[in-house]
Amino acid sequence: MPDIKPLNLLDLSFVLMETRQTPMHVAGLQTFRPPPDAPRDFPRKVYEYLRSFPVTAPPFNYRLRGIGLGRPLPYFEELEKVDLDYHLRHSALPYPGGERELGVLISRLHSNPMDLDRPLWEVHLIEGLHGGRFAMYGKLHHSLADGVSGVGLLNFSDDPAKSDTPPIWAQERRRRARGGAGHPGVLGVLPGALLSQARAVPGLLRGLAGSATAALGIKSDPDFTSLAEAPRTILNRNVTPQRRVATQATTLARMKAIGEAAGGSVNDVLLAACSGALRRYLLELDELPRKSLIASIPVALPRDAEQAGGNAISFANVRLGTDVEDVRERFALITRSSAAGRAYLRQMSATALIDYTVLISSPQMLTRLPGIGARVPPIYNVIISNVPGPRGKLYFLGAEMEAYYPISALAHGQALNITVMSYAGGLYFGFTACHDRVPSMQRLAVYTGEALEELEAVFLGGGRQAAAGPKKGRRKAGTSGARRVAAAAGLATAKPSRRRAAAARRA
Amino acid sequence: MPDIKPLNLLDLSFVLMETRQTPMHVAGLQTFRPPPDAPRDFPRKVYEYLRSFPVTAPPFNYRLRGIGLGRPLPYFEELEKVDLDYHLRHSALPYPGGERELGVLISRLHSNPMDLDRPLWEVHLIEGLHGGRFAMYGKLHHSLADGVSGVGLLNFSDDPAKSDTPPIWAQERRRRARGGAGHPGVLGVLPGALLSQARAVPGLLRGLAGSATAALGIKSDPDFTSLAEAPRTILNRNVTPQRRVATQATTLARMKAIGEAAGGSVNDVLLAACSGALRRYLLELDELPRKSLIASIPVALPRDAEQAGGNAISFANVRLGTDVEDVRERFALITRSSAAGRAYLRQMSATALIDYTVLISSPQMLTRLPGIGARVPPIYNVIISNVPGPRGKLYFLGAEMEAYYPISALAHGQALNITVMSYAGGLYFGFTACHDRVPSMQRLAVYTGEALEELEAVFLGGGRQAAAGPKKGRRKAGTSGARRVAAAAGLATAKPSRRRAAAARRA
Repeated sequence: MPDIKPLNLLDLSFVLMETRQTPMHVAGLQTFRPPPDAPRDFPRKVYEYLRSFPVTAPPFNYRLRGIGLGRPLPYFEELEKVDLDYHLRHSALPYPGGERELGVLISRLHSNPMDLDRPLWEVHLIEGLHGGRFAMYGKLHHSLADGVSGVGLLNFSDDPAKSDTPPIWAQERRRRARGGAGHPGVLGVLPGALLSQARAVPGLLRGLAGSATAALGIKSDPDFTSLAEAPRTILNRNVTPQRRVATQATTLARMKAIGEAAGGSVNDVLLAACSGALRRYLLELDELPRKSLIASIPVALPRDAEQAGGNAISFANVRLGTDVEDVRERFALITRSSAAGRAYLRQMSATALIDYTVLISSPQMLTRLPGIGARVPPIYNVIISNVPGPRGKLYFLGAEMEAYYPISALAHGQALNITVMSYAGGLYFGFTACHDRVPSMQRLAVYTGEALEELEAVFLGGGRQAAAGPKKGRRKAGTSGARRVAAAAGLATAKPSRRRAAAARRA
Repeated sequence: MPDIKPLNLLDLSFVLMETRQTPMHVAGLQTFRPPPDAPRDFPRKVYEYLRSFPVTAPPFNYRLRGIGLGRPLPYFEELEKVDLDYHLRHSALPYPGGERELGVLISRLHSNPMDLDRPLWEVHLIEGLHGGRFAMYGKLHHSLADGVSGVGLLNFSDDPAKSDTPPIWAQERRRRARGGAGHPGVLGVLPGALLSQARAVPGLLRGLAGSATAALGIKSDPDFTSLAEAPRTILNRNVTPQRRVATQATTLARMKAIGEAAGGSVNDVLLAACSGALRRYLLELDELPRKSLIASIPVALPRDAEQAGGNAISFANVRLGTDVEDVRERFALITRSSAAGRAYLRQMSATALIDYTVLISSPQMLTRLPGIGARVPPIYNVIISNVPGPRGKLYFLGAEMEAYYPISALAHGQALNITVMSYAGGLYFGFTACHDRVPSMQRLAVYTGEALEELEAVFLGGGRQAAAGPKKGRRKAGTSGARRVAAAAGLATAKPSRRRAAAARRA
């Protein structure tokens, strides 16, 4: 008899939210630099190493059962044997293996729904990145992510010489865990971190009753963002199945420098960069609303774990100031609004906080049906998460992890998600969007990089607005030392001209 | 207002058969050798050439609407604008880019369901095959395939210098068609050909009435295979969503030589090769039934197009003799059974033929529901199709098409399909199977090659059974001139040992 595991309410909510249009998987994308003198087939060796470990660790051997109409409540079944060839996949990028090719592949992989008859995870080893580099894309259904975040995951090592660590799905990783120096794995940090957004959802199932309504109307602080002021935007429509993923990277040092000069936190700088990018993107599409876009940001609260159902995370609504042209003025507005949102959460009672969290989480659940998503007015326009990741450099089989991008799930009414993760002094942006609803979304990644340059120019470079100065000179002077991967990816929308086609014909 | 196209009954049947477990797409896999002195990025040039043509030709701009519970009958809507980036995809194989890596990728692509919100086709340009070669995998939903087969498709050329032909989805292919020398395109030959199996399905919708029952019982010829003699096998269980694809290739000349020596047709040699492979495969799994496996083979009939609803294709049941050990005896049995099946169809009246075709096609429709597939006794065990393809070498942008493999769709109760296509003197086998139900299916492709060697040894090599002689010597002596690609592909099941893992760790 297979071992039966009932789903907890959180897991269940993600199974119920799974539709063809809103697959509930999250992912992490990491890029690696092989060790010096690695053979050409190093990625294949990594693949074969991973493939040598049978799937024995929960929840990687859990299969979802009892789904579909007329079935009893879903439950997990623990499998004796898992076909690793389905879950572990070896892929390659077409030449020249740049960030563009990577973005296209990741967008495609993130669009593919999972086979609900099998354990809901995939790990793709991707070779063919420029310069002999390779990537890993790890995909996990939200309903499994809680189990994953709950165990101590030890996959990567901060010592390249000891980085032959077993993969996350192998039971023996537990036996091989050494001391408390563990670092999160292929899927490790990410789902747990992304999940912080969603931990509050079970509260929803307790109903929308009680003092929650009180949270809606009353506000004395003019900087506090109510739940009724988000405008309708193109980002808040029903989503279709295909996804686009784009990335961007910068350094924490750079963000800190801007924040210190501007009088705000790293998170304020992050919000300001996203705000600048969203403003420009929507302006170009002639879709910028007259009122400011509202971001929902997860806030960690110093509170008893018990009180808030095992977590102390809530969400603050923050005005992004996309209706303000002046960069300084916009930054000040974001800083005030963010502070007011956090202060509001802090002064709430535990009970009120739960109800409040339920209230602001509910559209995620309510909008499961396509018809509803478009009718409910948005209570925020976009989720912008800032997730702390590993602080030191990590290695796997001697290969150095260069970057670590989080990729999220979408819901109806939420066609864009921006999640940012810190890793080893870097800050890695993952933009996840609906292919149909957020056209040319890779521009958002590019514009975020340029918005950062603008903030730098305004607050560190003598106050000139970035858009003015000559680009080449500005790069040389203003941002020395700042690492700018500028990995704007995703499916390109530019159509090659007939002239290019004719050239290809001649080739 | 979008242009609305109602689905005909055949198209509709494939929409109704589409489930998560039984996606109704078919595909073609072609490999190409670039022209001499082609640059390294030649595949990208091919991709960009294809990408320069907007989607304007029906049915490549048709979107399926009105599907799902509580909706009206499905229909097609003609789109003004199609996002080619979704349909045309550029991929690559991991190093070393052998047949194994190609098989793994194709198995994965063929397992991915299509996005039902978009036109139901995909073309994947795959670079990174050994020796600078590349491949194309074209995927099309069965419900669109009838429209595709109905038009003269002109994509490839028999003249490398004039092979800059527009793709199948571009309207201008019609304008550029020259004379009657057209050759079928990326998706062209294949779906039309595979569909020959399915053309008879609409008859089903007219009901299972009339003289059809007469076809069941009466048989005077002992070589005629009734509809009630197929054994239950592992191939006739419900299918799960994942597919495995494997390939094999040989030459028509080789098949003809065996057929002439053995006293049978090329088709008899094909059935004998598949029979030998199936017998060995099932024996090894200890799953060979006591009674012979029954193959269903499409038979083209000289008949008025009108009478049989626009086509004159039916199916004959043929005993494969998998219960017979002796190769000569087995071949004789197949030849007699195949002749009796064809003769039976030929002597039927047009009306009886339609009813008969309806009867033998019905399990495909009946078994749409998983519960039914396993309960209905199979009326045959495996479909083996032999499809005539282009006779001369074809080219695209100067690249020579080397091989052309057909990949089919499965239904509940039909976990394996073998479709074979001829092209330029070669014979290309596509094995499509359910990943879960047909374990290690790539062995079937290998065994089919070895069964051909055995037939050669028995009928051409002095009567010795292939299994006896020393393999090396036999290859040198017996099959000179025969082209044996032996491209057994698909997801490998061999697990690398811990020793290999340790080696990888040291690397």
